[in-house]
Amino acid sequence: MKALVTGGAGCIGSDLAEALLTRGDQVVAIDNLSSGRLEHIEPLRANPNFSFIEGDLEDAALVGSVMNGIDLVWHFAANPEVKFSVGDATDKDLRQNIICTYNVLEAMRRCGVKRLAFSSTSAVYGITPVQPIPESAPFPLPISLYGATKQGCEALISAFQNLFEWQCWIFRFANIVGPKVRKKGRTVIGDFIVRLHENPRQLTILGNGKQAKSYLLSEECIRAMLFIVGHAAERLNVYNVGCDDSLRVTRIADMVVEALGLTNVEYQFTGGESGWPGDVPHFLLDTRKANKLGWKARHNSEEAVRIAIQQVLAQTTAVVAEEPCKP
Amino acid sequence: MKALVTGGAGCIGSDLAEALLTRGDQVVAIDNLSSGRLEHIEPLRANPNFSFIEGDLEDAALVGSVMNGIDLVWHFAANPEVKFSVGDATDKDLRQNIICTYNVLEAMRRCGVKRLAFSSTSAVYGITPVQPIPESAPFPLPISLYGATKQGCEALISAFQNLFEWQCWIFRFANIVGPKVRKKGRTVIGDFIVRLHENPRQLTILGNGKQAKSYLLSEECIRAMLFIVGHAAERLNVYNVGCDDSLRVTRIADMVVEALGLTNVEYQFTGGESGWPGDVPHFLLDTRKANKLGWKARHNSEEAVRIAIQQVLAQTTAVVAEEPCKP
Repeated sequence: MKALVTGGAGCIGSDLAEALLTRGDQVVAIDNLSSGRLEHIEPLRANPNFSFIEGDLEDAALVGSVMNGIDLVWHFAANPEVKFSVGDATDKDLRQNIICTYNVLEAMRRCGVKRLAFSSTSAVYGITPVQPIPESAPFPLPISLYGATKQGCEALISAFQNLFEWQCWIFRFANIVGPKVRKKGRTVIGDFIVRLHENPRQLTILGNGKQAKSYLLSEECIRAMLFIVGHAAERLNVYNVGCDDSLRVTRIADMVVEALGLTNVEYQFTGGESGWPGDVPHFLLDTRKANKLGWKARHNSEEAVRIAIQQVLAQTTAVVAEEPCKP
Repeated sequence: MKALVTGGAGCIGSDLAEALLTRGDQVVAIDNLSSGRLEHIEPLRANPNFSFIEGDLEDAALVGSVMNGIDLVWHFAANPEVKFSVGDATDKDLRQNIICTYNVLEAMRRCGVKRLAFSSTSAVYGITPVQPIPESAPFPLPISLYGATKQGCEALISAFQNLFEWQCWIFRFANIVGPKVRKKGRTVIGDFIVRLHENPRQLTILGNGKQAKSYLLSEECIRAMLFIVGHAAERLNVYNVGCDDSLRVTRIADMVVEALGLTNVEYQFTGGESGWPGDVPHFLLDTRKANKLGWKARHNSEEAVRIAIQQVLAQTTAVVAEEPCKP
């Protein structure tokens, strides 16, 4: 089995590449290193079944050149920056999600590759009245460019799958947390650690702190994907991947504060229900479809976040810790 | 009120432009004339409130240059070719639907334009278990590039609407039929007329002929849009626009045969449930949301098709009749 992992130097991509190598697959990883990091794949380089290509999926010719002989594409490359601030460029998600995904799909079509696994996101559901959210939630309208372009990717995958008779798996992830670190805080655990190192007496929390989301460990995410691709045999398989509870942002702050051995930290809230424009403040995925197939998260959100905090802190004794991995 | 109508030389765009001028709006129409036709807007040219720009929405700078002072964008420009044949380019819908829509949205954002009406399609629903299909149908996965890219456009509109506090209207149309003609048969009425002129004894019908879809007259479509934009006051308004029944393809063939005064026409079927790859063979839109707001189609599908056949035949005594107008 020869696999192509796009975003292969990212958090999820590199963990998945490692798991595929462990089971004996050949793995070609491609990454433009815009957010992926070479250190993530450093341990894999010695494996003769592993190869890495530094390149951008916006380059359609390059994508075409790596597709020959591939049995299954794990398409994880994406703009990992979920947060949007007014003033940010609005085309980043369009290019890195929709255009890059189209390039992958078109290269697959040209090369006769017929199997694709794709990392989508709970953000495709936008603000939905049904909680926990099933895969068949009422036709959602995303509220962020990130969620909108991921929904666009799903739709393109669905069309290619139907027109060219492929088999595809789409994973709608909860927030994925894990040990891999970045230099700059981006998501909540990393942000809190970085900022509490800078100022151990005060912590700014985005929104009103009551946002409650679902968290899943990266290692559980990898297991889920391998299981679902191995067992879900429809032509198009869409699965929520998460756990059965959610966790408030302030609770995560408490847990980070505790893990750092701090006391009397004053929380300041930026206010509002959402953390940023396009943030979905509350979500819980209905994971019964995956459960019924035979996969279930071993840890709830609080356990996942607690373990991830320890994993992040174990990886870095310095200030610059971060846990990213939002697909 | 100053309106920008993209795809303004198309069937729906030019009809809408005429209706806007009639009520006293200023109208700027833009069209690349890839499928729109100058003859559609010829009658409007004498109106001092009308101006036309020949240009392509893929040219972001051009889109930006026409946006100043616009109060409401009617975004109808799209790839009108719903049919896909294996071997066709796969990027046409991506470029003409998603990229062009993004360019319109980004130009609106830059110029502070905050109101958009968009022509979407029943094709976003793909194959859905619920018939008639409500706007809140279970999260659909389109089966055509046309439907997939229109769903991507809807998602982008939803995100821009939320991030920049716009008001938007999305119309999911049934098949729109009407008098405006093209040189080459593309959709069912035009196709049948063209081919029956070529060979009055035999008619090839795509699929098994049992495909049943919903049809709406272009003039009804225009009325619906004006009514809904005038009355639906949510920030994001999504409406099915169609009638309450569907019509089999073979019945349309019978009606065209009858209108042409032919008898003993032999039907040949290409076979299969769908007319072409990505065709949704059966759909019926649930229009109760629009009905409740106060708009209801005056004609059912059979009446709409009957009138459209007469409209098309009245427009052309020659062979090359066609009714296009699929949004």
